[in-house]
Amino acid sequence: MTEHRETEAELAEDDFELSRKDLEAINRAIDEQDGPALDRLLEHEHAADIADLIEQLTPPRRRAFLSLYSGEMDGEILSEIDDSIREEVIEQLPHEVVAEAVREMDSDDVVDLIEDMDKSEQQAILAALDDSDRAAVERSLTYPEYSAGRLMQSEVVTAPEHWTVGETIDYLRHEDWLPDQFYHVIMVDPRRHPKGYVTLGKLLASRRETPLREITEDSFRTISARQDEGDVAYAFNKYHLISAPVVDDHDRLVGVITIDDAMSVLDEEHEEDFLRMARVSDESHVSDGPLQTARQRLPWLVINLFTASLSALVISRFEGTVARLVILAALMPIVASTGGIAGTQSLAVAVRALATRDLTSTNARRVILRELAAGMLNGLGLAVILFLAGTFILGAPMIGVVLGMAMICNQIVAATGGVLVPLGLSKLGVDPALASGTFVTTMTDMMGFFAFLGLASWILI
Amino acid sequence: MTEHRETEAELAEDDFELSRKDLEAINRAIDEQDGPALDRLLEHEHAADIADLIEQLTPPRRRAFLSLYSGEMDGEILSEIDDSIREEVIEQLPHEVVAEAVREMDSDDVVDLIEDMDKSEQQAILAALDDSDRAAVERSLTYPEYSAGRLMQSEVVTAPEHWTVGETIDYLRHEDWLPDQFYHVIMVDPRRHPKGYVTLGKLLASRRETPLREITEDSFRTISARQDEGDVAYAFNKYHLISAPVVDDHDRLVGVITIDDAMSVLDEEHEEDFLRMARVSDESHVSDGPLQTARQRLPWLVINLFTASLSALVISRFEGTVARLVILAALMPIVASTGGIAGTQSLAVAVRALATRDLTSTNARRVILRELAAGMLNGLGLAVILFLAGTFILGAPMIGVVLGMAMICNQIVAATGGVLVPLGLSKLGVDPALASGTFVTTMTDMMGFFAFLGLASWILI
Repeated sequence: MTEHRETEAELAEDDFELSRKDLEAINRAIDEQDGPALDRLLEHEHAADIADLIEQLTPPRRRAFLSLYSGEMDGEILSEIDDSIREEVIEQLPHEVVAEAVREMDSDDVVDLIEDMDKSEQQAILAALDDSDRAAVERSLTYPEYSAGRLMQSEVVTAPEHWTVGETIDYLRHEDWLPDQFYHVIMVDPRRHPKGYVTLGKLLASRRETPLREITEDSFRTISARQDEGDVAYAFNKYHLISAPVVDDHDRLVGVITIDDAMSVLDEEHEEDFLRMARVSDESHVSDGPLQTARQRLPWLVINLFTASLSALVISRFEGTVARLVILAALMPIVASTGGIAGTQSLAVAVRALATRDLTSTNARRVILRELAAGMLNGLGLAVILFLAGTFILGAPMIGVVLGMAMICNQIVAATGGVLVPLGLSKLGVDPALASGTFVTTMTDMMGFFAFLGLASWILI
Repeated sequence: MTEHRETEAELAEDDFELSRKDLEAINRAIDEQDGPALDRLLEHEHAADIADLIEQLTPPRRRAFLSLYSGEMDGEILSEIDDSIREEVIEQLPHEVVAEAVREMDSDDVVDLIEDMDKSEQQAILAALDDSDRAAVERSLTYPEYSAGRLMQSEVVTAPEHWTVGETIDYLRHEDWLPDQFYHVIMVDPRRHPKGYVTLGKLLASRRETPLREITEDSFRTISARQDEGDVAYAFNKYHLISAPVVDDHDRLVGVITIDDAMSVLDEEHEEDFLRMARVSDESHVSDGPLQTARQRLPWLVINLFTASLSALVISRFEGTVARLVILAALMPIVASTGGIAGTQSLAVAVRALATRDLTSTNARRVILRELAAGMLNGLGLAVILFLAGTFILGAPMIGVVLGMAMICNQIVAATGGVLVPLGLSKLGVDPALASGTFVTTMTDMMGFFAFLGLASWILI
């Protein structure tokens, strides 16, 4: 950790974004309604940077920008704009601009663009496509949300399995509809069942008369169009796939998923887990307004109000104890909050391990026992510190003993709860990142107050 | 969120891992010392699955496995094994097996394997490589840890910029050292400065006489060997790069980074942020033992002991108030803990937005004001609930008023603190995921107790 920090000082910095100076010039051009200046400033910028710019503009400037720049808006920029404001952007663009942009897109990007729109808006956009593209997009939309079928592009490069390298190269040279990016030629049988694939590198490096069958890759595996996109991303990362054919329920080739799309999904899944663990909706975005932000966060706050009331109830059972020794009120949050941290630690490791399939039924028992032991060890360590603090700072060794004993109980509950709760939720089919935190901290809060006040009323009073 | 859950039921399941039945058969073969059965069981398994298996075995079974299976251990399996146990595995394998495995690896995998070893172990492995491979690995190791120079592979396919498609294909057909996976031919000038690149797809689809210059890609950008690997992964994801040439300080081509490596880094960086936010060392792994686990988690627990003592100090200033109205002791955690949740929510959004460069100096002021307003709104909402609960459940409207007012203060502190703290830490060059949580929850705890008890002693007593 420290090492990482130290070496980072030596590393080069490049922020991969528009410079502050560029941004100021762009803002000036927008404010002065200077379209040509804007075009000039953005001429060499990547679509992703232009999309970032649009996201970061204030809403009035964004409207001004769109009316000045609409001639230059293309499919690439539109695909890059974040979901949270894309609909707003599309509404502000002239219909012809959107239609033209959509015609340039690959089918997977069109699907991504329109899947959250309502039927009539979808139809307006689909009408801009030619028949075969529209059919491809409509077929994708028949698959469930977050499935491989929604993620795939329909543009696939195939060859009959009996072809040679030379035949394949001649075919590729004569086709003019090839996708922008493709990494494999997929070999299919006459019923379009994928049988293997060949990398373009091997195709280029082999002699013309080599049969494709002799240079296929071991890494070949097909993906069902109904597979969850998170599993697809996991498989790409685990098996180092670059592209993978997608098949329908009859094992027929319907599309291909490429690693750049799998990488985006991996990024989104991580972001979702990160935000869910912090009890934030994964729809949250920095460009949201205050009302939207407040509304997204309120539900978990209200739930916490309820779980915190359970702790209050626990404490209220010991009002007599607290009344007789008021210092207990000051000390009791120590046990509860340290338990909360330990629970979150154990939980985070378990949630990640579940996501990466490192925590399975094979090793669950071992991991639970490991947590139990680690909780006991840390409980003991913290108890020693608390006993010393009680003795030498508060001058009350018995209070130190009570704090320490309560801490040991709560650390054990925290560490084991941190792995049992996500394991249980995942068995029930609930995303462990979503609800585990609330369960675990409620447990550690209640246990922390109960153990401390219970032991105090038994030992001290 | 709910929608996501609902549709997942329709999605196909494939766990991309060894089945439970296979695992049992493998364990049996290990226990019976049946090497041939083990070979047969693992014959068609992917290296990544075998590596997962090795990670999940208990340490004694792992030793037995390695002595039975050592003949089959190859470079691919060795590269896939998690850092946390790889050194242990290498120590248990015969030296010739490791040497043979390393010879098969790409230079980037060798670097990954040996970078954490001490000098003498590194030398033993480097000695197994031939001269040019060893030189490549040694050059990579001269770049800082976590840099593009460590991530790149040295095997690069280049062509002079003036070549045609035909010349390039002829050259590729006659080379026998081509890397397993490559996606671009990089055009270099006579001093090995990269000038552009051509996708293999374009190379295959173009006529032989086409000059390479006419089919280069716009996406071309070089990466400095000193660039942080996290920035590299960010750039790959943002600009949809598939491979990118890496250059030294003199802009000379020294290697290439491919998207599969960038995807692994993206995955690791997310995992690191996730664990850091939960105050767990990013070295944590489910295969760690109890002692190791306890030691990794103890530092943050001790820090929390200290910060929780600050809250205890705040409360102890109000001992007189609590003594006169003991119910305050039961109620005070409500304000503090709900503030903690709100702080974590705001923090998580800010930490992600900083990582994705969505929170910049351009919009920082707007985001801070947005958080202020959202905190006020949610504080008001929660205050209404607390007032009603105070009135109708506790029968004490004034206690409800105090709870509500304290909640409003603490929600504002939580929401703004959640964005100001990570912004401040990131300005100071500290990873905001690492320390923000402790700062923010200390703030919300102290503020929660102070506002509630302060208002109570002013209004109620």
